[in-house]
Amino acid sequence: MGSEVYLPQIENIERGSLREEIQAHLDDLTKPPGSLGRLEEIAMQYCLARGSLRPLLTKKKIYTFAGDHGITVEGVSPYPKEVTVQMVLNMAGGGAAISVLCKNAGIDYAVVDIGTAGDYSGVPGVIDLKVNNGTASFLRNSAMTGAECRKALLAGASLAEQGEADIYGIGEMGIGNTSSAAAMYSLLLDMDPYETVGAGTGAEGELLNHKKRIVAEAVSFHRSRWDGSPVDAIGRVGGFEIAGMTGFILSAASKRIPVVVDGFISSVAALAAMKMTSAVEGYLFFSHRSAEHFHAGFLESLGAVPILDLGMRLGEGTGAALAIEIISQAMHCYSEMATFSSAGISDRED
Amino acid sequence: MGSEVYLPQIENIERGSLREEIQAHLDDLTKPPGSLGRLEEIAMQYCLARGSLRPLLTKKKIYTFAGDHGITVEGVSPYPKEVTVQMVLNMAGGGAAISVLCKNAGIDYAVVDIGTAGDYSGVPGVIDLKVNNGTASFLRNSAMTGAECRKALLAGASLAEQGEADIYGIGEMGIGNTSSAAAMYSLLLDMDPYETVGAGTGAEGELLNHKKRIVAEAVSFHRSRWDGSPVDAIGRVGGFEIAGMTGFILSAASKRIPVVVDGFISSVAALAAMKMTSAVEGYLFFSHRSAEHFHAGFLESLGAVPILDLGMRLGEGTGAALAIEIISQAMHCYSEMATFSSAGISDRED
Repeated sequence: MGSEVYLPQIENIERGSLREEIQAHLDDLTKPPGSLGRLEEIAMQYCLARGSLRPLLTKKKIYTFAGDHGITVEGVSPYPKEVTVQMVLNMAGGGAAISVLCKNAGIDYAVVDIGTAGDYSGVPGVIDLKVNNGTASFLRNSAMTGAECRKALLAGASLAEQGEADIYGIGEMGIGNTSSAAAMYSLLLDMDPYETVGAGTGAEGELLNHKKRIVAEAVSFHRSRWDGSPVDAIGRVGGFEIAGMTGFILSAASKRIPVVVDGFISSVAALAAMKMTSAVEGYLFFSHRSAEHFHAGFLESLGAVPILDLGMRLGEGTGAALAIEIISQAMHCYSEMATFSSAGISDRED
Repeated sequence: MGSEVYLPQIENIERGSLREEIQAHLDDLTKPPGSLGRLEEIAMQYCLARGSLRPLLTKKKIYTFAGDHGITVEGVSPYPKEVTVQMVLNMAGGGAAISVLCKNAGIDYAVVDIGTAGDYSGVPGVIDLKVNNGTASFLRNSAMTGAECRKALLAGASLAEQGEADIYGIGEMGIGNTSSAAAMYSLLLDMDPYETVGAGTGAEGELLNHKKRIVAEAVSFHRSRWDGSPVDAIGRVGGFEIAGMTGFILSAASKRIPVVVDGFISSVAALAAMKMTSAVEGYLFFSHRSAEHFHAGFLESLGAVPILDLGMRLGEGTGAALAIEIISQAMHCYSEMATFSSAGISDRED
């Protein structure tokens, strides 16, 4: 099952003359050159991604992709599987961290049931893109069928098709999905699962050791059978929410809309997308360094410096929400600050 | 000139039973315990500072303290001294980075002329607390008289007297003030000025070497004459905006209102306040790690981990504005998230 399943055309963001024009504007703003630090780099990347010297950043939207995981039957999480569905309702009802953050940051928000064991008929704020009621356990089977994987990728992509936002954030919910993500990192980066598995929602001691053994056994099973493609890695050990986020990222990037990636699990969806086409990287903002084991190592291997480092490990899109506030402020500065010439301010004397 | 000049009563924030109640509420929110990382620590500190289990965080206010510096006659900055007054007008007019950030973050904002060479009669948004039209050069003289220092401390304190905000941010503007701050760090921490002086707005090469020599010469002159008190350090080598921020911090803390400290220069005002009374520390949030040389080292020596690390070095209060958005979101999560019991969500199984 190769990458041909879904791969839209994505333009490389590098554009020589636009970059120079953006830099000239940044240097004309009333501040010493470069003194806004990362805010200036963020504004540069945002403008390049939008392909414009004066892009708007008004409409912000975060989706939480939710899916259940068959691997939970192996007892890899301290929380019962039912929490996935309960948390979808909490997110839609406004009580989850991500709901609170989005409401107060002026970010439009929705949770996407792409594969949970719940029925949310009549629940406002839940988008129904359900592929199945959860994946199969990937211990000695594929988590999903080829058809399911394709359906989840396209479902995620469909959400970004309308292109109705200036920036997107993505996050996830799914008890068991740090096991799934760790297995994907191990396949895609050819790493030992003992290095990629971490505590997730709070696995400690013997539970953490057990989680490592389960993921290691599963990765060992799939490694020799894997066709080497990112899509097959998702189908074998991923989750519906991971597939959905990968499709979403590719689709958004094809519309030149930047995507703010949340933490450990969202990042493996981004890794899969980057393995499909490196052009997507210019459209990604890595929001924060998660406290989940290996997220720091992954970002470092990518040379990506996240915007925030707040020791968060909740997922949902919570890191993305806070980072979108920073990106938004970077663009406010870029678009609304006075220039040296307009404000009549003396420049450097040298 | 001792600390008795201005030192209001400040309560220590440590309160055993309140801390436990806050922690119990944090752990009841619908998330794995501790998974919001620094946001939970921030909420804890904010609640302790306010002395309440359910404090409001609605009214946010940032002041930029502006002052001119006589040391500029020694050619320590690449920008002409006139930029201080021009930037005060730019800040009041809405064109500066801090004005843009505050407007878009819903933070009330004003710039305070505590000692610039400008006249802002009739300019809205500039608060007149002028002590003098700038300090004297501190190369071989005190930057200000004892009376001026006292007046600047009390002027800053007066701004926080009304206690009309739930949280304050402070920043500064003053061409030449990184030289002044570096000299203060050297006195207060008994450090070599060659370690505390940095590029400021962009001193490089020979200009930076010259700046280091000037500050080193000045510190050498004052070290033997200094009475060892923070107030005398401010009077000798500080600035009116630094004195104002020190007074402001002490006054706000005495009202139990937290102060978000901006960067290199605001931090030295905080250091002076902490040297006057260590109880003030619980009311301080260090907003960001400035790119200015020695700010990282100072924060580390204090054991303070700043909220943001965005390579900024603009001052004005820009780091404080962004950090206030994070603190505000931490308190939204604390106050508005559902609890496990209220949302009917299953807790850990162990």
